[in-house]
Amino acid sequence: MAVSTAEKLAQGQKEISIGEFFQRNKQILGFDSLTRALLTSVKEGVDNSLDACEEAGILPDIYVEIEQISKIEFKITMEDNGPGIVKRQIANVFGRLLYGSRFHAIRQSRGQQGIGISAVVMYGQLTTGKPTYVISKTEKEEAAHWMNLVLNTKKNRADIIEEDFKIWEGKEHGTRIEVYVNARYTAGKQSVLEYLKGTAIVNPHAHITFKDPAGEIHEFKRVSEDIPRQTKEVKPHPKGIELGHFHNMAKASSHRRMVAFLTDEFSRVSPRVAKEILEKAGVREKKSPKTLSIQEAKAVVKAIDAVKIMAPQTDCLSPIGPTLIKKGLRNVLSGLKPKFYAPPITRDPSVYSGHPFQVEVGMVYGGQLPKDKQVEILRFANRVPLLYQQGGDVITNAISKVDWRRYGLEQRGGKGIPYGPAVILVHVASTQIPFTSESKDAIANIKIIDSEIERALRLCARKLKSHLSKSATKAKNREKFNIVQILLPEIAKKSANIVGKPVPKLGKTITSIMDVIWIDDSIEYDKKRHKVQVDVYNYTSTIKKMKLYAELPMDDIDMKKFDPEPDDINGDKVQWNINRIASTDSYPIKFELKGLEKEEFNDVEVYFSDMNPAIVIGADMLPGDWNLDDKRITAAAQSLFDYDEAVSKTKKPDDDDDLDYDDVAEVLDDDNGIGDSAEVISNDE
Amino acid sequence: MAVSTAEKLAQGQKEISIGEFFQRNKQILGFDSLTRALLTSVKEGVDNSLDACEEAGILPDIYVEIEQISKIEFKITMEDNGPGIVKRQIANVFGRLLYGSRFHAIRQSRGQQGIGISAVVMYGQLTTGKPTYVISKTEKEEAAHWMNLVLNTKKNRADIIEEDFKIWEGKEHGTRIEVYVNARYTAGKQSVLEYLKGTAIVNPHAHITFKDPAGEIHEFKRVSEDIPRQTKEVKPHPKGIELGHFHNMAKASSHRRMVAFLTDEFSRVSPRVAKEILEKAGVREKKSPKTLSIQEAKAVVKAIDAVKIMAPQTDCLSPIGPTLIKKGLRNVLSGLKPKFYAPPITRDPSVYSGHPFQVEVGMVYGGQLPKDKQVEILRFANRVPLLYQQGGDVITNAISKVDWRRYGLEQRGGKGIPYGPAVILVHVASTQIPFTSESKDAIANIKIIDSEIERALRLCARKLKSHLSKSATKAKNREKFNIVQILLPEIAKKSANIVGKPVPKLGKTITSIMDVIWIDDSIEYDKKRHKVQVDVYNYTSTIKKMKLYAELPMDDIDMKKFDPEPDDINGDKVQWNINRIASTDSYPIKFELKGLEKEEFNDVEVYFSDMNPAIVIGADMLPGDWNLDDKRITAAAQSLFDYDEAVSKTKKPDDDDDLDYDDVAEVLDDDNGIGDSAEVISNDE
Repeated sequence: MAVSTAEKLAQGQKEISIGEFFQRNKQILGFDSLTRALLTSVKEGVDNSLDACEEAGILPDIYVEIEQISKIEFKITMEDNGPGIVKRQIANVFGRLLYGSRFHAIRQSRGQQGIGISAVVMYGQLTTGKPTYVISKTEKEEAAHWMNLVLNTKKNRADIIEEDFKIWEGKEHGTRIEVYVNARYTAGKQSVLEYLKGTAIVNPHAHITFKDPAGEIHEFKRVSEDIPRQTKEVKPHPKGIELGHFHNMAKASSHRRMVAFLTDEFSRVSPRVAKEILEKAGVREKKSPKTLSIQEAKAVVKAIDAVKIMAPQTDCLSPIGPTLIKKGLRNVLSGLKPKFYAPPITRDPSVYSGHPFQVEVGMVYGGQLPKDKQVEILRFANRVPLLYQQGGDVITNAISKVDWRRYGLEQRGGKGIPYGPAVILVHVASTQIPFTSESKDAIANIKIIDSEIERALRLCARKLKSHLSKSATKAKNREKFNIVQILLPEIAKKSANIVGKPVPKLGKTITSIMDVIWIDDSIEYDKKRHKVQVDVYNYTSTIKKMKLYAELPMDDIDMKKFDPEPDDINGDKVQWNINRIASTDSYPIKFELKGLEKEEFNDVEVYFSDMNPAIVIGADMLPGDWNLDDKRITAAAQSLFDYDEAVSKTKKPDDDDDLDYDDVAEVLDDDNGIGDSAEVISNDE
Repeated sequence: MAVSTAEKLAQGQKEISIGEFFQRNKQILGFDSLTRALLTSVKEGVDNSLDACEEAGILPDIYVEIEQISKIEFKITMEDNGPGIVKRQIANVFGRLLYGSRFHAIRQSRGQQGIGISAVVMYGQLTTGKPTYVISKTEKEEAAHWMNLVLNTKKNRADIIEEDFKIWEGKEHGTRIEVYVNARYTAGKQSVLEYLKGTAIVNPHAHITFKDPAGEIHEFKRVSEDIPRQTKEVKPHPKGIELGHFHNMAKASSHRRMVAFLTDEFSRVSPRVAKEILEKAGVREKKSPKTLSIQEAKAVVKAIDAVKIMAPQTDCLSPIGPTLIKKGLRNVLSGLKPKFYAPPITRDPSVYSGHPFQVEVGMVYGGQLPKDKQVEILRFANRVPLLYQQGGDVITNAISKVDWRRYGLEQRGGKGIPYGPAVILVHVASTQIPFTSESKDAIANIKIIDSEIERALRLCARKLKSHLSKSATKAKNREKFNIVQILLPEIAKKSANIVGKPVPKLGKTITSIMDVIWIDDSIEYDKKRHKVQVDVYNYTSTIKKMKLYAELPMDDIDMKKFDPEPDDINGDKVQWNINRIASTDSYPIKFELKGLEKEEFNDVEVYFSDMNPAIVIGADMLPGDWNLDDKRITAAAQSLFDYDEAVSKTKKPDDDDDLDYDDVAEVLDDDNGIGDSAEVISNDE
């Protein structure tokens, strides 16, 4: 019985063609429902167009049209002004799975797998039986080439049904694809329109026109003429490289000596570093990489981990950047008027398994955002919005691990997606996004990516908390202030009138009630200008001097009308030396900023130094100031920096061991007076 | 510029080998962290062993050992008593991706993709540089074959480093694999031990021995000698088949006539049904399938949807079944003593995209399960526990959509995973589980699977709600009962003593207070016997007669000592005709059940008929009884059946349109008196 089974099984065992595999498992490619199939089809096409335009240095003009043919059949047309595809490659690009140009290149791009658009062609023919029409023209060619093709799933090759060339009127270069698919058109969160909106947010250099099945035109205009920094192809970074991969590279190397192999085939490895690695590994510098044994390879990989190597280049990555993140959030949240835009965090690049990656986080709060719902999460990978599989994404995982109750959001048990009027945007950029499946909906739960996101979230969340507690304090102070400034003099005046005596000078009374330095700030926005006023009131009985600092929203803006002129401008920090304020006197500082949208600057950060912080209300001590009499603050700051240092030293790409970040963060975050200073200090990052 | 880019891009475009693709994207295969890599490796091996044993009709004996070699290097050994693998296939099975015997067969099995175990070999060599050792012996062979092999990722073929044969002492047949991987060993929820525990729950016919890195032996004993029903390979079911797939089948068919093609290459298509389809489609019966145009194919597929076709065979599926689900839950929850095990639901098979599937749900509540946490979700696909990607799974999606507040669990806003002392088990069995990725962690969100799960959840949840409200009512009744039965006579006795008069007869007083038929039930468990007593008290002023029914936990148990003997036993329903209870009298019914564990029967369902339900407390009207004077109940019951009918008629595999199940369920579930009866009636399903 058993033997016959073994033989029977053996006879049944055979190769599975990649085409058949994906035809059967089309949900893996993002075609698991009619609604999603439509989104996936558009996404694969548009992502390809954006990639091609970026590579060619062209400002993209993209046209998307969806026509309803029958109840569940739709025709999707997508046209771009990209560089075009040469004739001999059209059939391969659209009719073969696992075929493309971006898989072997180490650089940030949207498509990497060489699967997407061919999968759309396959899905189309599978559901409607119709071939896909492609027309493309490059600049040098006189005419455009077109063809009708299907994907032969058994052979994983295109079957060309018909092809020819023709004059493409008014088109210099570009590609157009027309594909029929079974689908369903919806509005809402996981729709084509939402995807295009998200795409426009993080690709402001693109001009996208979308004609929906009802014939309505949606236009996303180009708001920036700058093509994103062209990402450079880089060599692999040696940190975190896998032994097997390294050994294969060595065996395939054309170099004769290990030192040249390491220097030339990896990034950030100087001859000095290469020698240090080889010495540590006990491998001769002149050894031929081809003859490297697995034991030697293991020793080298171990040595790489132990040696200090420069962080990966950043020019293979193209982060969105704080300004665009803010702009993007403002776009998407237009109507909801959030009160607070936390300064977005763009982390330094890090490495997992040899692949550089970079995390960015933005956060907004308040306004008309719904108070009783889970916060909205906007996920992006290499500038592509992710609309499905939120629950299976490392971004969601990182968000769920943060105890948001500490930062002013509601969260049951300190775990899970928090509730409250907030939106959290997270962008992960990498030369190789580790998607959980070919449908590219979710990023896998890689420990170091998870930690980087969590870290960025906490930094951003601290700003939120700082804002929330500041708002609360401000409201309280304002009340007290009104009593002192308005009510007391009013009472004095009335009382004097009644008793027929002169109005008494209240200065002394007020100083004896208050005995503080009062710093009050306000912002008015008018005619595209932010008018800022900071008043310093001396409610003590003696003459005071101090230094005052204001943090501007960014350092490259056009500033106007400082009054008085500041004593120092250093990046985004402006400093005034206030040499004398008499008792009961006040010292006004005014300035205007031009060129920002209202929402970009609605909260001025004011700091002071050279003054006992115990008597100052309304501003924080300048971070990093060493005249602090509260040594605890300094200690907290130092330990945070130490911690960062420690983490950057201990963190190894793909190291699965816990970094104990949470423990450290908990100590620093606890509401013991240290927490607040840690927040201030984190502004320095 | 643009043209040179087009040409440059063309030069870069090339085929990506499947091996390189998965090496680069190993997270897709379940190797995205050290912890998970270990689990994935064990899972792929054990799933293969279980599949092979099942196919060969062998009771599986599986040995798993994990040894720690260095900080992050582990050696995994897995050995089974399966049929073995013939020599010429060993290298293919372990050294090629997309190679296997189960991809083309339409039947339920754990492995289907032909990727898993080869991926383990690849991951091992990638991280440790070491080859995998495989030894296998079939029953007919004298000696076993062994080899050390690696997977050549460029060619997607095995490189055999060394091979030979040897005598395998004491082994008749089986396979053993030894692979070295970088990994991390943990305990807890997503661990190897947890996976093996889960596997043992739903594979009680397997004997699994696990030696962990500390040398501790964990044994999961065989608790059932029955090999699961061997699943039969079936032909595809025509409902929901995709046009492209259908057209390909037609073109590849060796049949000369359409009617023979339909009858022979699909399941459940009789000649009569085939003719009906072809007539509706306007296609001649004698037409050759090879010459079928795409338009004709489209018409046939449309006709298939419109014609009534028998549900798919169930013998290609192997559900766990209610008994094993209960046993399994008891195993995993041993210490926590839940109060209530809802009768598990095993739905009838359904079809998505031509693939039969079947959903099962179990639920437990109370005891020492944590009250303030999210309910625990146990997910299984084809008898394999799913431990990762819970958030991206259709099971989680379906659970999150149910408004559990209606069923007695806490849930913010009626959405998301509910909170409370409950465990929900969901098993999806299918000839083709639509996993979201090759790592097989989560089932894709296919609409009809989602609906089936949701439906099963609601049916199970109704039992929970019924239990909870019954418990509440019971507690209340018990109080009232105690007053009447104990307190009143006691007071009467004492009062009589004090005034020196005889104790008065309270019968009349009580009946005038109560004026009800009181049904009280209790279960005692002693020496593996459930002793059940049901007492019917007549607290009315007249003689009564009625029928009483008890629902037993299952119909094949060994029953003893009915007192009095029942008048009818029908499956799991037992009936007594009570012909006379005098006023103030009571009628006791006793029975004992043997052979069940305590937890399997802790709540006896008692029903009555032939009595005005308005005067009965402590039991429900028999479902489906037509003597009801409350017509509303009948109406509700009828509308539920109508609804079921309507749904089964409208639901089309993979139909993405909303079924509006929620709306109907809301009407039926509303707390307007109809809800309760709907619950009762749902017991019939």
